[in-house]
Amino acid sequence: MTRFMDVHHGMQGITAEQLQQGRQAALAVEREVGAHFEHAWADPESGTVYCLTEAASTEVVQQLHERSGGNVPDEIHSVPLSV
Amino acid sequence: MTRFMDVHHGMQGITAEQLQQGRQAALAVEREVGAHFEHAWADPESGTVYCLTEAASTEVVQQLHERSGGNVPDEIHSVPLSV
Repeated sequence: MTRFMDVHHGMQGITAEQLQQGRQAALAVEREVGAHFEHAWADPESGTVYCLTEAASTEVVQQLHERSGGNVPDEIHSVPLSV
Repeated sequence: MTRFMDVHHGMQGITAEQLQQGRQAALAVEREVGAHFEHAWADPESGTVYCLTEAASTEVVQQLHERSGGNVPDEIHSVPLSV
């Protein structure tokens, strides 16, 4: 499993409730797709959302978003290094 | 204090040691500038580094990077929402 940071643009006005719903939806399907959602951070003003996930591949991160009914990320980067 | 996600581009080949040195440098000056470094994640392949910091403003996040001798981020977004 590798850690991935994905980035969503164009989500201006996202609320705490919407972010929480996205988290719940991801947690509900993460075992099915073989991923583990860790965290998400959102900037409602610029419309940017960052999600941190453990998964086997970029494709699995994509699937996690698709199956949880969320917006598909604009960028997905593996982040093998962290401190 | 607000949480900020900043993004660095062009850091291809960054190593675990360099990321760790950046963390140590940030921790050494964070009180002086009034910030708190939380985490950083790096993708050596695309050269992208994400840093999560608590600070009073974008300017303080900028100062934290400048005074710790690190690369100044290309983007700084406040991320008031998190899950």
